[in-house]
Amino acid sequence: MASWVTVEETSDFSLNNLPYGVFSTKGSKPSIGVAIGDYVLDLKVLAEEGVFDDLDFDITTLKQSTLNEYAALAKSGHSGLRRRLQKLLEKDTRSGNVLRDNQGLRDKALVPLDSVKMHLPMIIGDYTDFFVGLHHAVTCAGLVKPGSTIEQLCPCFYNLPIAYNGRASSVVVSGTSLHRPNGQFPVDGKLVSGPCRKLDHEVEFACFIGRGNPMGIPIDVDAAEDYIFGFVLMNDWSARDIQMYEATLMGPFNGKSFCTTVSPWVVPPEALEPFRVAPKATPRELPDYLVEKNHISVYDIPIRATLGANGQRYRIADCNTNNVIFSFAQMIAHHTRGGCPLRTGDLIATGTISGPKRENAGCLLEQTWGGTDPCEMVAENSAESNVHRAYLEDNDTVEFTAHVTGPYGIGNVGFGVCSGKVLPAI
Amino acid sequence: MASWVTVEETSDFSLNNLPYGVFSTKGSKPSIGVAIGDYVLDLKVLAEEGVFDDLDFDITTLKQSTLNEYAALAKSGHSGLRRRLQKLLEKDTRSGNVLRDNQGLRDKALVPLDSVKMHLPMIIGDYTDFFVGLHHAVTCAGLVKPGSTIEQLCPCFYNLPIAYNGRASSVVVSGTSLHRPNGQFPVDGKLVSGPCRKLDHEVEFACFIGRGNPMGIPIDVDAAEDYIFGFVLMNDWSARDIQMYEATLMGPFNGKSFCTTVSPWVVPPEALEPFRVAPKATPRELPDYLVEKNHISVYDIPIRATLGANGQRYRIADCNTNNVIFSFAQMIAHHTRGGCPLRTGDLIATGTISGPKRENAGCLLEQTWGGTDPCEMVAENSAESNVHRAYLEDNDTVEFTAHVTGPYGIGNVGFGVCSGKVLPAI
Repeated sequence: MASWVTVEETSDFSLNNLPYGVFSTKGSKPSIGVAIGDYVLDLKVLAEEGVFDDLDFDITTLKQSTLNEYAALAKSGHSGLRRRLQKLLEKDTRSGNVLRDNQGLRDKALVPLDSVKMHLPMIIGDYTDFFVGLHHAVTCAGLVKPGSTIEQLCPCFYNLPIAYNGRASSVVVSGTSLHRPNGQFPVDGKLVSGPCRKLDHEVEFACFIGRGNPMGIPIDVDAAEDYIFGFVLMNDWSARDIQMYEATLMGPFNGKSFCTTVSPWVVPPEALEPFRVAPKATPRELPDYLVEKNHISVYDIPIRATLGANGQRYRIADCNTNNVIFSFAQMIAHHTRGGCPLRTGDLIATGTISGPKRENAGCLLEQTWGGTDPCEMVAENSAESNVHRAYLEDNDTVEFTAHVTGPYGIGNVGFGVCSGKVLPAI
Repeated sequence: MASWVTVEETSDFSLNNLPYGVFSTKGSKPSIGVAIGDYVLDLKVLAEEGVFDDLDFDITTLKQSTLNEYAALAKSGHSGLRRRLQKLLEKDTRSGNVLRDNQGLRDKALVPLDSVKMHLPMIIGDYTDFFVGLHHAVTCAGLVKPGSTIEQLCPCFYNLPIAYNGRASSVVVSGTSLHRPNGQFPVDGKLVSGPCRKLDHEVEFACFIGRGNPMGIPIDVDAAEDYIFGFVLMNDWSARDIQMYEATLMGPFNGKSFCTTVSPWVVPPEALEPFRVAPKATPRELPDYLVEKNHISVYDIPIRATLGANGQRYRIADCNTNNVIFSFAQMIAHHTRGGCPLRTGDLIATGTISGPKRENAGCLLEQTWGGTDPCEMVAENSAESNVHRAYLEDNDTVEFTAHVTGPYGIGNVGFGVCSGKVLPAI
């Protein structure tokens, strides 16, 4: 499917993607749009123009400054708009396209991506970070207690998707800088209070909840995908020294709550359909509430992490969203199993999705074996010399990108960049 | 200070209290009020009548259906309104009181408490549960690993206020019933999926944040009290079997996220001033960011937990808010130390505040030594026979109340009831 809007082959935003975002131009209020090629299509402008008046959902949801109201609609509303947008943007020879053939509207509604500021797409009620990455868990177990398996440290690991509640107030959109956090941690057996010395990134995949569930009523695993509005890349920045010292009893707190970055474009589930695969196997028999009829329930999406430093870009790692033992549907079924209500805008993440090799490690904790073996990062421009990192340094920029091209010429689907720069501690 | 509104000696709501709440009467929208005697004074009605027009804050904040906008005001706004309300409600011989001497307004603004429905007072962005109860921690350490100290299980316990992120979406107002949660947990070495068998309450004290802090900017411990809007009682319902199985690595999740109950009235800090005491001593030297100039920084407020069952009421335990090793100011300073932003409406709780004896245990886990030694609960009406509980049973109602009368005749200050009934699992 080609569009009359120019879409380069390397673009994240083909007609098969159409991710939602919230953007603003200088002096204007934030508005809802979808990305196409090098443009964002302003849905508020089209809604006000009456372009969607015949669609069967509440059009005022497109005139808000966050995606929450729109995300809360029934799935049929989202599918209907997606079909309409594909029709509007598709290259064809028929005349009468209300957008393509109306230059005034086109100029108003198609805004160059390089002229917009992106905002956090949704108001996040709660943010949950799971820990379902197979290789990440296995490696971390060996780091925490050399020689031990993940089941020795966490007997339930293969039996249910474990998780902790993250901090919603510190979730920011890509491009937001963060300060190196201060905290308490031991150094050479002496307790220190000061700037984190083991600052790390974590490559994660996350979804935003569309429709929620009432308190007390669990979501069936086979219905759980209906509750997902869309997907983003996520960097769960971690202060390893602060985290290791504080988290022995109650889990991560200040070691994680200083910043979590998400990519700005929410990719709809339909765009990822061609990339479905099965999750990694869990060796334990699961209870009914976690057994999916369709076990092809996760995605095969490579995510690349890069480091920006000294004006150069270096490759850190290549991860994949398929390195998980539970799907989002299973996470949602487990999350709500005891009656916990999910609400529109809730953010649910996989935890670090490292692959099996060192070059697939989703965090430096793994890649540098707890900082003891600094890794070499290869310059993308090979004429440049490489850099070494044990953990992140001030002024480092970490970026995640993901781009998939499906079989049968389907694609290109990408997420835009999930980026953040480390500023010195305050 | 007496009021012309009748306030019984046993009432929680004297002129020294004036807690804020959100209430509605049949068919009306939720409105902000303060409790006085057996009435709630409708602040929206008074604001619309122009009674507060000369006060120096944005009066529209009183016309909302949650307390968030009002709570975000500068402290001077809250103090100004409090002084004005005390003047309006004080018994004196002067004429011209715009409320007392206007029967039409009185009838409209003073609503009998027994005719109103109370609502969750604030929209909660994030909910944080600390673990600063001294006796609770010491007992739990012995339960988790017999013979061990809390510092062996959690080396940082005395060095910083530890915490986990709770689940904001499952916080409800007193009076909301909850279903016994389902989950996975081992029974006699075999993994079971089904209704929780170790359902527990937790007696906690909590505050709502008024003004927030920007991301990256910590709150100084000596300024931290300015960020507190007010206080509530809290029951952090816990499924011990689910919690123990899931929480070895990432802390509590489904074991806590099915329901957390708060009392409906937010008691302002001024009302608790006469009840200040020092926290329990921590044997470790604290870093500067946790050292308070005024160490008389917690409150001496007894909280009673009772059980409603078989139409009778039984005494469970008597706890106290002073059983903590860190104050809310210290919790806030630590919470924001790494740059985490607090937002208006955030809920911050102490964790279980058990006293030193069995009859002061704030949860059944402690009181029954992990369910192995059921406790006898004494009927408040002594003619009734007592009951025994290892953990909570279906149709049990757990209620917390707190009522203090200060020195020099100051009081009475109470919180209303924090109550919830356990319904069978779905």
